[in-house]
This record gives sequence, C-alpha cells and structure tokens, in this order.
Amino acid sequence: MTAPPHETRPGEPGRAPHAGGPRRATPDTQQGMRRRNLARVMHAVRAEGPLSRAAVAARIGLTRAAVSTLVDELIRSGLIEELGPERPGRVGRPGSALAVSARGPAGIGAEVGVDHLAVCAVDLRGTTRARAIRQGANRGRSPEPVIAELTALILEVVAEAEGEGLWPAGLAVAVPGLVARDSRTVVRAPNLDWHDTDLGDLLPAEFPLTVDNEANFGALAELWLGDGTPRDFLHVSAEIGIGAAVVVDGGLLRGTRGFAGELGHVPVQPDGPECACGGRGCLEQYAGEEAVLRAAGLEPDEDRVGLLAGRAADGDEDVRRALRDAGTALGVALTGAVNLLDPDGVVLGGELSGVAPWLLPSLRDELARRTAGPVCPVTVSQLGPQGPLLGAAHSVVRAVLDDPAAVAERA
Amino acid sequence: MTAPPHETRPGEPGRAPHAGGPRRATPDTQQGMRRRNLARVMHAVRAEGPLSRAAVAARIGLTRAAVSTLVDELIRSGLIEELGPERPGRVGRPGSALAVSARGPAGIGAEVGVDHLAVCAVDLRGTTRARAIRQGANRGRSPEPVIAELTALILEVVAEAEGEGLWPAGLAVAVPGLVARDSRTVVRAPNLDWHDTDLGDLLPAEFPLTVDNEANFGALAELWLGDGTPRDFLHVSAEIGIGAAVVVDGGLLRGTRGFAGELGHVPVQPDGPECACGGRGCLEQYAGEEAVLRAAGLEPDEDRVGLLAGRAADGDEDVRRALRDAGTALGVALTGAVNLLDPDGVVLGGELSGVAPWLLPSLRDELARRTAGPVCPVTVSQLGPQGPLLGAAHSVVRAVLDDPAAVAERA
Repeated sequence: MTAPPHETRPGEPGRAPHAGGPRRATPDTQQGMRRRNLARVMHAVRAEGPLSRAAVAARIGLTRAAVSTLVDELIRSGLIEELGPERPGRVGRPGSALAVSARGPAGIGAEVGVDHLAVCAVDLRGTTRARAIRQGANRGRSPEPVIAELTALILEVVAEAEGEGLWPAGLAVAVPGLVARDSRTVVRAPNLDWHDTDLGDLLPAEFPLTVDNEANFGALAELWLGDGTPRDFLHVSAEIGIGAAVVVDGGLLRGTRGFAGELGHVPVQPDGPECACGGRGCLEQYAGEEAVLRAAGLEPDEDRVGLLAGRAADGDEDVRRALRDAGTALGVALTGAVNLLDPDGVVLGGELSGVAPWLLPSLRDELARRTAGPVCPVTVSQLGPQGPLLGAAHSVVRAVLDDPAAVAERA
Repeated sequence: MTAPPHETRPGEPGRAPHAGGPRRATPDTQQGMRRRNLARVMHAVRAEGPLSRAAVAARIGLTRAAVSTLVDELIRSGLIEELGPERPGRVGRPGSALAVSARGPAGIGAEVGVDHLAVCAVDLRGTTRARAIRQGANRGRSPEPVIAELTALILEVVAEAEGEGLWPAGLAVAVPGLVARDSRTVVRAPNLDWHDTDLGDLLPAEFPLTVDNEANFGALAELWLGDGTPRDFLHVSAEIGIGAAVVVDGGLLRGTRGFAGELGHVPVQPDGPECACGGRGCLEQYAGEEAVLRAAGLEPDEDRVGLLAGRAADGDEDVRRALRDAGTALGVALTGAVNLLDPDGVVLGGELSGVAPWLLPSLRDELARRTAGPVCPVTVSQLGPQGPLLGAAHSVVRAVLDDPAAVAERA
C-alpha cells in the first residue's frame, strides 16, 4: 500500500511557516516522503497522544508496519518515547502508548522588550520548562550590552533545561521592530533606537537563530496556543509602538522586505500631528502608549501599560477618556485593514491586552459604524504580554515537529 | 531515475491560484506525480516553445523517455502539437519541435461593466481569437436581462472560436462587485445594484464557471501578462467604485469571505462626508469617478473616465485639480495599505489607468511624504481597461496549463 501523504500549506503540519530563512520545499522523492511522514507521526502523537502505533496508523492513513518503522526512528532520535503497555485487557498484543518526548529538543525563546528581557525553554510537549526575566529600561542602550545581558539569560535557561535532559534545538528572538527577511537583522527598532543590527553577530553561534518582530511571534502564539483562533486574522500588539501581524491561511504574511503589519503608521487623521516616521496623524499618534499617557496628562513610567490599566480600573476619567479615544483611532485604522484583508477576526495581544477593557467598546463601535455587513469580531488574547515570548519558543518546537528528520540528524 | 517534481505555490505552474471553487491539492501519488509532470511539460513548452522533447527534458529535469510519454499523452489530447522536424543539420535523430496547440481548449472571458458587456476567447498560446462587446448602461437593470445579453455575446464568441477549431474549456466572468468564495455568487455590486445574485443560475450550464471581482482578474492579468510585474503587489482599479486586489507571492489574497481588497472604503478623512457603506470619509468619496466628476463640476456621462481624461488633456484646470486631489486621497489610503502589506509595488489598472497621468504625481508625493525608507513604486498597467477581461479568459487558460490531465479527460 502506498502512503498517501497530503500536501501541506504554510502553518500546517509538515512545513514550518516561520522558521529561520527562506522556506525550503521538501523535495518530492522517497526521502522527502519519509521526512513528511515522520512529521505526520510527530504531529499526530503531539496533538492526540498518548497513542498506540495502531492508533497513529489509523489517524494518518499509513499501514501499521510503515508507522512502526517511522516510530522506531523517532524513538532512536529521542523525539518520541514509549510510556509502556496500555489497556492490557484488550484483545491482541497490547500496544505501547507513545508520547512526544519530555526530554530531547527544546525551543529557546527570547524577547527584547523596551523595558525588559525574557527567555524561556519549551519542550516538545509545549510545556515551559525554564524561564528567566530581567526588568530594566533598554531604550537608548546600544545593542551590544543589551544582547550580552540577553545572552547571559539564555545561557542560564539553557543550563537549567539541560539539567532536565533537554537540549536547545534553536533560538528565536522577538524584538520590537522591523526585521529583514534574513531573520537576523533588526532593520529599525525606533523604541530601542537600533538600526541595521545583525543580532546573529551578537548572539551565541551554537544555536540556530530566528529573529522576528514581536507582533509576528505574538500572532503565531495566538494561532498555536489560543483557544479557537481563526486561521485568518489580524493580531494587534503594542509596546510604545503599535505592531500588527497578518495571518493568512495559518501562515504569516511577511511582505517583500519582511515589514508587513505596520499598523502604527496607518494614517488616521491625514492632517494630524507629525510623526517620527515622516507622516502625519499616524495611528501611533493617537493610540501608542506614549500618546495615551500624554492625552491622560500622565508622565511616562517604566510600566506604562500597568500605570494606565491601574488608573483606568480606579475610575480615573482622564485615563478612561484617553483610552476611549485611542480605541476610536484603532477602530479607524482597523476599518481600513479589515476592508483590505477581510480577516476572520482581530485579536488584541501583547501589552495592549492589559488595557483592552477600556479600548474595546469604542474600537468595536467605530468598526461597526464604518463597515457594511457583519462586523469583524475583535477579541483579546488570553496569552497577553506572554504571547511574543511563547510564540518565539514554540516556533522552534514547531520547526522540530514539522521536520523531525532534520533535528534527528543533529541530535 | 526518479522524477524530481517541485512543490508548487499558488500562482506557480502546477496549481491554479484562482480557478473555481476551493482548491483541491493534487494527491501525492504516482497518478498525482504524472499530473504534475504533464503540467510541467505544458508550462515549459508554453513559456519557451517551440522546443524539442530533449529540450523539454533538459528544462524540467526529467529523462527524455519520461518526457516522450508525457508529450505523447498531451498530443493525443490535442493540447500540444508537433511543428515538424527542426534543425535537420544537427547530429542525431532530428527532434520535432513542440508547441502548445492553437486549436483545442480556449478560455472564455466575460466582463459585466457598469456601462458595457464584453466577451473574448483566448487560446492556449495566449492569443485572443474572438471578441465581442456591447456598450450600454447596466446600472439599475436587474441581473436577468443583463446576463441574457451577456449569454448571447458568449454564444457568439464561442461559435466564432469553434469555427477556428477551439472548444471552450471554461467561462470566467468579471463583475464590479464582491463575489462569495463559491466563485458564483455576486454578494454586492452597488454600482449595478445587484445583491446575492447567483450567476451560475443565469449563465449557460455547459461551461465550467468562475465569477470573480474585476480587480482580482485585473491583477491576475497584470501578473501573467504585465511586463516585469512583481509577485507581491497591490492592484488598484476603478469603475465608479475603487477596487483593489492584493497579490501575495503570485497568488490572490481572497479573505475569509472573498472580500479582500476593499480599498474604496478605507477611511481617508474619518470625519469626511457620509458614504453609502455606512462609514464616513471613505476613499471613494474622494477618488471615485463620481466624486471626481462632482469635484470638477461635471455631470456624469456614460464614458466618465474618457470625459475626465479628455478634459484633463485639454488643460481644464478644474478637472486637473480634482484629479490631483483624488491622487492625494489615494496616496493616504495606499500609505495604510503599503504599511500593512509591504508589497513590491502598486499598479494602477482598469479604468483608472486612463487618468493616471493626472493622479500619479500627487499620489506619489503623498506616499513618499508618509512613508519612511524606500518608497513603494507606483506604476500604471499597460493592459489598461482590458485587464479584467483578459485576466478572466487567461485564468481559464492557466487552469488548463496547470492541470492538463483534467482537460484531457473532458476533451
């Protein structure tokens, strides 16, 4: 019987939609088929395990014999483990339940925030196994000392993960800025004041590296870990600037230079105040954290969103009005985006989720007033500010699940 | 030797990015491999023919024997023809040059415009072989009589094509409105006043049908027939309304409901005049044909773009100012779109191309003023108002080239 592997699309099992560098199509050979079938076994066990070999075979439409060969290879590589015989009361030889390994490869996620650094390690089961965080302003600091501190955190997390039998399969770094399609170079991070910085030169060379915009990683986290996230959505995120990520059919839309999703500079009032980008009346001038603080008569603080959320919760009318106006401005910008992209939903994530209760009503009103037909639903991420860091770590894990053969060769 | 077929992406040979209904992935079997290889032969001969069998084999990386079998099948189906021996002076058995057939399947394209109906037949070589047009306002007429007239034109064009040995492989219809993802139903065509109209019920049942928005077909024409069109671009088109199509990596971005590309209702001045869509200050209020005519103090005419272009060319300052202002409004809306999508370029097509000389300077200025870094190039389609009709007919031809086996079964 011939194995009937399916073609896959970006974001579906069998292909990494996001992993570092340009995507390589798996060649359509016996070897390529084996690789794709290894991925299908991994995804089946990950999604529905523990499963017996027979159950895996039934789910992915291969013979029991073919699946056994694939499973043996994955066990040898340490990607799958046997939990021992299951359901011994049943007729026939008892199947041994399979699960993805809680040891073996781990994804290392890291985040450079304007006011913090964070690193975590996630195993193949999706469990966060180690974590480190350092608060402190990074704004205006040059990349070298910041990345040196990040590296120290990374090595700390890696050491902790290795103590639990894990090994780093790759490092993914979320940054608040535009990243080139080489997945290494921060072209522009205005809130850090970094320009054309190749992080590959500054980070430990031993880990395969992917650098991406925090909104992109946040969107991937939402797609993979969110509850009922659609496969076509716009993810809006904010940390001083306003970033967005466009997910189409379960994959990120990156744009020619990798800059897609620049919602913050969509004109909201074409004759409005000047923006650092050279334009006027950009969304950031109305809904960026600093603009909202200014409108509320507050001074910037290290924890800007926390300050706004706290004041709004306390009933501060100036802050509530400022957030309401920011919601309206977001509604105008999102009307344009929804008209252009026709997504299945908009998710507010990242730091923005902290003030969502006071943004959402005016945002939804504005969107409803301006769009004909059914209104695009706007929801708030349940991952909140953790999204980008989790998305980074899980992107490495996904790359392993999507091509276990590549990792097995390195194990 | 194993054939090394490549995986394909939407818009590349081997997959129809646009053809009617949800796309079916070719299964990864021997049979699927044969189908994909037939497509590769068709595309090689189409793009670079006339070619000998040996030249085809060299180009697509299959053995001469494998290619001969595939070519024989395509000749039997009437999709490829032999032009006779070539270069007889050469060593070895002379190869017979192959070309895609100028008889056999043809794509029938049709267009429902606000002021005209048009139909054409295009053969596999891409040559337009028959054409019919009827001028006359369709606005406010119900779909039945309009589609009855269109059907008469279709049958006329089909009869002419059949007289030349062609047969209709499918019918693609461009409409100025939003089309559901069933590729049959016009959900909303405000300038015709059509709503939820299933054109499949009104058109001859014998032709496989694809209905799509005129901007989408215009964009595909640009992609396939334009000179140096990038694979990521925004195609802006206009006929009273302003439509756009988003092309990502050589395929159309359709959106959840099939409505992606609604540039006309992107807010340009959030407190501007009310729009029929329920919003305020939408782009159409500034750059739609009727808005421009109004701003120039002119009465609507059957050939609105012709009127505007004529007056502008004659130096009418009111018309020139109105078009300049429309260009500025387009620049504001496109700033948002370019920020979100990061395309490789913007192409003005359809009816809009007729007034492009007077729109472009202010449009480009506005975009340059508002975007940091290199400015996204804005060009004018060389296909002009013919784009949507040609895109429709060529979409049928592409579907044949992308899966010749499907057509061979019906031949």
